[in-house]
Amino acid sequence: MPEDKSTEDQSAKTTGYSDRSYRLKRFCRRRFKIHGFARLLFRWKASVYKLLWREMIVFLGFYGVVSILYRFALKGTTKSNFEKLAFYAYDYTKVFPISFVLGFYVTVVFDRWWTQFKAIPWPDRCVYNIAAHVLGNDEEARIIRRTLVRYLNLSAIMIFRAGSKRVKKRFPTLTHIVEAGILTEEEKNILKDLPSTHPKYWVPCVWFVNLIRMTRKQGRIVSDPAMKTIVDELNNFRDKCDELYGFDWIIVPLVYTQVVTIATYSYFVACLLGRQYLDPEMKFEGHTIDLFFPGFTLLEFVFYVGWLKVAENLMNPFGEDDDDFDMNFIVDRNLQVSFLTVDDLYEMSLPIVRDQHFD
Amino acid sequence: MPEDKSTEDQSAKTTGYSDRSYRLKRFCRRRFKIHGFARLLFRWKASVYKLLWREMIVFLGFYGVVSILYRFALKGTTKSNFEKLAFYAYDYTKVFPISFVLGFYVTVVFDRWWTQFKAIPWPDRCVYNIAAHVLGNDEEARIIRRTLVRYLNLSAIMIFRAGSKRVKKRFPTLTHIVEAGILTEEEKNILKDLPSTHPKYWVPCVWFVNLIRMTRKQGRIVSDPAMKTIVDELNNFRDKCDELYGFDWIIVPLVYTQVVTIATYSYFVACLLGRQYLDPEMKFEGHTIDLFFPGFTLLEFVFYVGWLKVAENLMNPFGEDDDDFDMNFIVDRNLQVSFLTVDDLYEMSLPIVRDQHFD
Amino acid sequence: MPEDKSTEDQSAKTTGYSDRSYRLKRFCRRRFKIHGFARLLFRWKASVYKLLWREMIVFLGFYGVVSILYRFALKGTTKSNFEKLAFYAYDYTKVFPISFVLGFYVTVVFDRWWTQFKAIPWPDRCVYNIAAHVLGNDEEARIIRRTLVRYLNLSAIMIFRAGSKRVKKRFPTLTHIVEAGILTEEEKNILKDLPSTHPKYWVPCVWFVNLIRMTRKQGRIVSDPAMKTIVDELNNFRDKCDELYGFDWIIVPLVYTQVVTIATYSYFVACLLGRQYLDPEMKFEGHTIDLFFPGFTLLEFVFYVGWLKVAENLMNPFGEDDDDFDMNFIVDRNLQVSFLTVDDLYEMSLPIVRDQHFD
Amino acid sequence: MPEDKSTEDQSAKTTGYSDRSYRLKRFCRRRFKIHGFARLLFRWKASVYKLLWREMIVFLGFYGVVSILYRFALKGTTKSNFEKLAFYAYDYTKVFPISFVLGFYVTVVFDRWWTQFKAIPWPDRCVYNIAAHVLGNDEEARIIRRTLVRYLNLSAIMIFRAGSKRVKKRFPTLTHIVEAGILTEEEKNILKDLPSTHPKYWVPCVWFVNLIRMTRKQGRIVSDPAMKTIVDELNNFRDKCDELYGFDWIIVPLVYTQVVTIATYSYFVACLLGRQYLDPEMKFEGHTIDLFFPGFTLLEFVFYVGWLKVAENLMNPFGEDDDDFDMNFIVDRNLQVSFLTVDDLYEMSLPIVRDQHFD
Amino acid sequence: MPEDKSTEDQSAKTTGYSDRSYRLKRFCRRRFKIHGFARLLFRWKASVYKLLWREMIVFLGFYGVVSILYRFALKGTTKSNFEKLAFYAYDYTKVFPISFVLGFYVTVVFDRWWTQFKAIPWPDRCVYNIAAHVLGNDEEARIIRRTLVRYLNLSAIMIFRAGSKRVKKRFPTLTHIVEAGILTEEEKNILKDLPSTHPKYWVPCVWFVNLIRMTRKQGRIVSDPAMKTIVDELNNFRDKCDELYGFDWIIVPLVYTQVVTIATYSYFVACLLGRQYLDPEMKFEGHTIDLFFPGFTLLEFVFYVGWLKVAENLMNPFGEDDDDFDMNFIVDRNLQVSFLTVDDLYEMSLPIVRDQHFD
Repeated sequence: MPEDKSTEDQSAKTTGYSDRSYRLKRFCRRRFKIHGFARLLFRWKASVYKLLWREMIVFLGFYGVVSILYRFALKGTTKSNFEKLAFYAYDYTKVFPISFVLGFYVTVVFDRWWTQFKAIPWPDRCVYNIAAHVLGNDEEARIIRRTLVRYLNLSAIMIFRAGSKRVKKRFPTLTHIVEAGILTEEEKNILKDLPSTHPKYWVPCVWFVNLIRMTRKQGRIVSDPAMKTIVDELNNFRDKCDELYGFDWIIVPLVYTQVVTIATYSYFVACLLGRQYLDPEMKFEGHTIDLFFPGFTLLEFVFYVGWLKVAENLMNPFGEDDDDFDMNFIVDRNLQVSFLTVDDLYEMSLPIVRDQHFD
Repeated sequence: MPEDKSTEDQSAKTTGYSDRSYRLKRFCRRRFKIHGFARLLFRWKASVYKLLWREMIVFLGFYGVVSILYRFALKGTTKSNFEKLAFYAYDYTKVFPISFVLGFYVTVVFDRWWTQFKAIPWPDRCVYNIAAHVLGNDEEARIIRRTLVRYLNLSAIMIFRAGSKRVKKRFPTLTHIVEAGILTEEEKNILKDLPSTHPKYWVPCVWFVNLIRMTRKQGRIVSDPAMKTIVDELNNFRDKCDELYGFDWIIVPLVYTQVVTIATYSYFVACLLGRQYLDPEMKFEGHTIDLFFPGFTLLEFVFYVGWLKVAENLMNPFGEDDDDFDMNFIVDRNLQVSFLTVDDLYEMSLPIVRDQHFD
Repeated sequence: MPEDKSTEDQSAKTTGYSDRSYRLKRFCRRRFKIHGFARLLFRWKASVYKLLWREMIVFLGFYGVVSILYRFALKGTTKSNFEKLAFYAYDYTKVFPISFVLGFYVTVVFDRWWTQFKAIPWPDRCVYNIAAHVLGNDEEARIIRRTLVRYLNLSAIMIFRAGSKRVKKRFPTLTHIVEAGILTEEEKNILKDLPSTHPKYWVPCVWFVNLIRMTRKQGRIVSDPAMKTIVDELNNFRDKCDELYGFDWIIVPLVYTQVVTIATYSYFVACLLGRQYLDPEMKFEGHTIDLFFPGFTLLEFVFYVGWLKVAENLMNPFGEDDDDFDMNFIVDRNLQVSFLTVDDLYEMSLPIVRDQHFD
Repeated sequence: MPEDKSTEDQSAKTTGYSDRSYRLKRFCRRRFKIHGFARLLFRWKASVYKLLWREMIVFLGFYGVVSILYRFALKGTTKSNFEKLAFYAYDYTKVFPISFVLGFYVTVVFDRWWTQFKAIPWPDRCVYNIAAHVLGNDEEARIIRRTLVRYLNLSAIMIFRAGSKRVKKRFPTLTHIVEAGILTEEEKNILKDLPSTHPKYWVPCVWFVNLIRMTRKQGRIVSDPAMKTIVDELNNFRDKCDELYGFDWIIVPLVYTQVVTIATYSYFVACLLGRQYLDPEMKFEGHTIDLFFPGFTLLEFVFYVGWLKVAENLMNPFGEDDDDFDMNFIVDRNLQVSFLTVDDLYEMSLPIVRDQHFD
Repeated sequence: MPEDKSTEDQSAKTTGYSDRSYRLKRFCRRRFKIHGFARLLFRWKASVYKLLWREMIVFLGFYGVVSILYRFALKGTTKSNFEKLAFYAYDYTKVFPISFVLGFYVTVVFDRWWTQFKAIPWPDRCVYNIAAHVLGNDEEARIIRRTLVRYLNLSAIMIFRAGSKRVKKRFPTLTHIVEAGILTEEEKNILKDLPSTHPKYWVPCVWFVNLIRMTRKQGRIVSDPAMKTIVDELNNFRDKCDELYGFDWIIVPLVYTQVVTIATYSYFVACLLGRQYLDPEMKFEGHTIDLFFPGFTLLEFVFYVGWLKVAENLMNPFGEDDDDFDMNFIVDRNLQVSFLTVDDLYEMSLPIVRDQHFD
């Protein structure tokens, strides 16, 4: 049943993220047997390994260098001093509570990440109100509805460009937006000439209000409550744009991020010394075996630095990582849904028929 | 008093989940004596044992193999090396703070789980507004009210299909929805032909708006505030659908899940070695007794892996686990309540009588 | 000034909970001297001692039995093995991080508890709107207002019965509600005959809508915004009922509760062995003194199991514990306030007089 | 520029709390040099020292008594037993995780504290709507506006009296409210005679609705949306009152508070023994020095018991502590602002003039 | 394409904060290679080093003094006693759980910080409603719209002055606001003469209401819902002002801050003694090496005191630190956007043209 397919599985067809999301969900939805989350361990895309392989190589490289130095280069007192230093560093690794720091920090960043997703402006509420309240089947009515909807999408694209690298790449200049048919040449010039030193994503919203006022005067909007509700929804839409701008403007204080990063990195610098396998023949406590490869320490590295990477990823969800929000998908979806709603579907009249259970 | 019974205890009659929920509550509501939560330890359905018995067997199997190897296969230096390795692994288990990681992670996932429940769209607000504001007792009025309500339920079912495996099973194709009487053949064809590459659950909402606009023009909706309020509530309903779609689309970053899983699993890999009972005759510290069965370690396993299972379960609450939301129950409830409200109960007029305390 | 007394201190006169609450507050409000929270330690009602005395006795009993066995029954190798087992168990108690688990779990449950309190439907907003917008001093107007208010209270009582044991006891069947004058015989029969398999607390809300629609047609409600606002508030009221039903339906996953309970209980099983006073003459480390009574261990028991009890109590706040919400008090309060508002106080006209500061 | 002074710095002139707040902020606003929070350590008012000096003296007293007993009274085996007991108690202090418990508990209480502040009802929204929608410059219009505003303030004062000791002291009886000019003698009698057994703060809200209804009938309120919005805002105001009453009624479960208090107090009882300086000549591990004064232990005491005091303070923010909300300030501010808004400033007409930048 | 530049990159042109923010984001947006957060470690502006260098010098100074005393001044028993003291202090540093305390405290303060950002009043919603509903192209209409907008900005500036040092510096007296053209001389005098002892930021809101009432009477506002919505949005705006004032008035209890500060500072006082390198020749456990410079301890200092600095910074975000909100930027932006919206852009009529995709 291909038409169903096309209706249901589109989320899986979008690029990158949702593809992964889809497959993850397919995993999750299966009754968990022994695997479960375990199966997720063997994925590459958007995985901790993909994010960390460079860091892991660097860490292992340094570890190896220190290890080789200790095993072959150091002799006598120097060797003994290195061993003392290793114990000193080891003691330090036990003092440092990076798990708490990371736990609290990641929780804060996670909240912020989801709030940012919730702050993405969707034009739908406005669009439905336009479809419900801006009446008329003549060409001018169609143009007005299309223009209103165009302004909303324009405003969203302008704020997305400020925050999302992907959208910025797609629309590097206003001219590209003109070419995409979302801005007219004339409007571009007005935007350009406006003597404001601040981001101008709010200007299309003002145009929207002006057009709505005119439409009300013309009588295409027939009621005052309708007028009120459209303006209210425009304001809600614009508030979301402002909120997104606020997230772009006010970031998590640099100090907090630095503190967490310093804690994590200095922990692993200490590990470079403190987690070396010391000569078992010296009978140091806890150093009875020499495995050469720091397996568990590497797991620890994956774990803690991976946790820090979670924070890095969540901090800027509008980038181009595997896990970031696909803003271009949102732009396309919004354009399609809003034009379909106020134009193509507006005039489609379904027959009023009894449903199957009508007695 | 059977009619009461039927009114009060239906929550217990629904399948799976609420049955468990009901019994749990019966437990909880009793004055806790010595048992209390303790009694919950002996339940099977939706229990941690049911979720974990396979993993427990695998863990015990591996533990047993290692134990047998140590006891019978290893000799001399190899045995001694194994013992050193066990101590090394044991040290590692103390370093790893999986309780924090799991605590923070599960808290994040728990919040998300409940937010997802809150995001389920219920048509009730819209339905009550239709009952209050779409007037008329003639057949066309009835058809209009029923159609409006049908669109709402259709939209909800389409978004549920995208997220919930149970609903997808019940309505694998649009044709099944047609057969259930919630979609007409003609509407199905329109949905099918719509040139949109995104999920189409919003289309019935557009139909709803179109029908409302027509109904207002006909005068069956008599006031502008009523018109406004119906469109507003439709928007709220559709927002919930979008929110659910957002949860389906944007998942908790894979990295976070991997980090937590790696931490937990590597902890128990380390335990396979580090929690072995070493030969008491070797007089190792903390190895004075050989109990053969790793009782406390198994408890630890149940505890930590169970905690991880909590996260797995909460991560996708729209599946088919014992603990997942029963979306088909919601579909049925919504259909029943909404049609009863706008149709059967609409015309039922109760006599206006003095109540008992009327002086 | 007795009338003041009667105005101010009624919260203290309600049964059970608020009595305790009142006294607690009297404590808290006093300038804390050395006591403060300390004074709360000597209360019995709703206290941790009252909740735990049975468990404490059981724990001490088991502890005593083990202690006696160790002191008198065990000899030689058996005794020595027990001592080894005790050390093994003691090591285990240090591994287990129940404080984190309980901390995270109780925080989650606490949030849920307060959200449940916020979900209790209060009819006040609807009632005030009825008083403001349903006009008329004739008998029919009075009956209509009283009936509207009656439906609201009926709906609340029906949902309370589903969740609260106290309300269920007060109104075990619909007939009891009829007797209380909140439901008429005829309405009861309609409820009984309604072919719905789900809880029917929403049916009175539909009646409410039908009556409102009729009242608007009669012109007793004179404006469309008034009509809109009453329906909106009814929807808010019904949403609260649904939310309460949702809390009743979707509980904290059993797995989470089991995991926390297993952790706590296995900790104290390990304590039964590991916290025994071993023979001081054996010169075991940390076992230099024999106090017979496990004072600090008992404090630990009170502390951890008490923390778990907090979760148990908060999990189901609609029960009959000292700390649970007194739903019958809410039912009474709602009935009284709503009938007074729409009926007795409706016609009471206060003279419009200059206030004291009017210049 | 004294008028500026009077405009800007009034927050500093209010009693108690804001004075402290003001000075704290003056600290905080200065560029932090080396001090910063450090400077706050040397404040007395509302400080941890002021709150704890009594407890500190008691703790030191007990510590001193135990210390003197150990040093001078105990001999031989008794002394040795005491030393064993001290080690036992010391072990116990390490087992007890009071930092987690306090951390989770204080976080919960802190949230509740701020939510309580947000629940304080401010009449401003209602007042502005009265100013905007209740028209007329004649005396009756003035009286109506003043009466409406009076009812709001009366309702707020009645609920404040129930929760805040300061307001209760200011208005111990309804007669005191009459004397303050917020209640008339006649209204007092109605309140007194009302046959309700519950707090009556909602009654003035009903009077408000009755008066609004009359005013609408008179035509002083000219539009239905205005009528609707005033009733809505009244409901929001009354909801806040209810919320405050809810906080007064449903407190944090006593068990939780007891558990935290037991943990903290038993920790320091254990410290009385376990943190004694044992005879250095006995060569006990960790007891190589005798400082007589338990400096660090006292810091720990200040820290942990101070943390508990934070919870005590936040638990009841409507009391008379330095840190509590100054409810009488709020009462005064509300009275002044609301009467100025609807009366004095209502008729003040500012000339409509071009502003400076008008081109 | 310079006009684009000017549209997109303005956020980077504002002073201080956003400059940093911009560069940080440029970092973050690049695909993280090995650096990532690591790169942030080498920044100075708003960094932890810039905040802490003074404290670090002081700490190192004290550490050095103690170290020199130990190495050169102390002999014999005194030296030995110092060593005992150092061990005693070292034990203490392990007891103190400052990571939890800081974790919980910073989380609380972080929430409050972001809530404060959300509480900043933006006039945009009001402004758009004025543009939509206050009609007329004549000069008086323009003046009215400009005056309404002026009152909003005036109110915001007055509340900003109370909280933000930067705005207070810019407008030290009302006369400065007059000079900026936001207040007229006459209005200043009224503000000055108003017999209120509380902050007067609400007075312009009352003027706003009075002017709106007059405008409605004149018929420039043509509908009642428009009137209602403007008053509602004014109330939302004023609520934000009140919320900001509330944050200014009710601070985090001093006790909590003191407790956290005491914990952190006493930890590092203990470190001054306990983390000294003791003579390796004494063979003390863990003191086998003498590195002279306390590298790891300094990292710990940076980490913990840095974490405390995060709290200090977040506590008062309206100051003049690198990380604080730039309130003057907000004042400018609001003035520009609001006057452009209601005046310059109000009359700009865009031609109604078919868009590019119009078929």
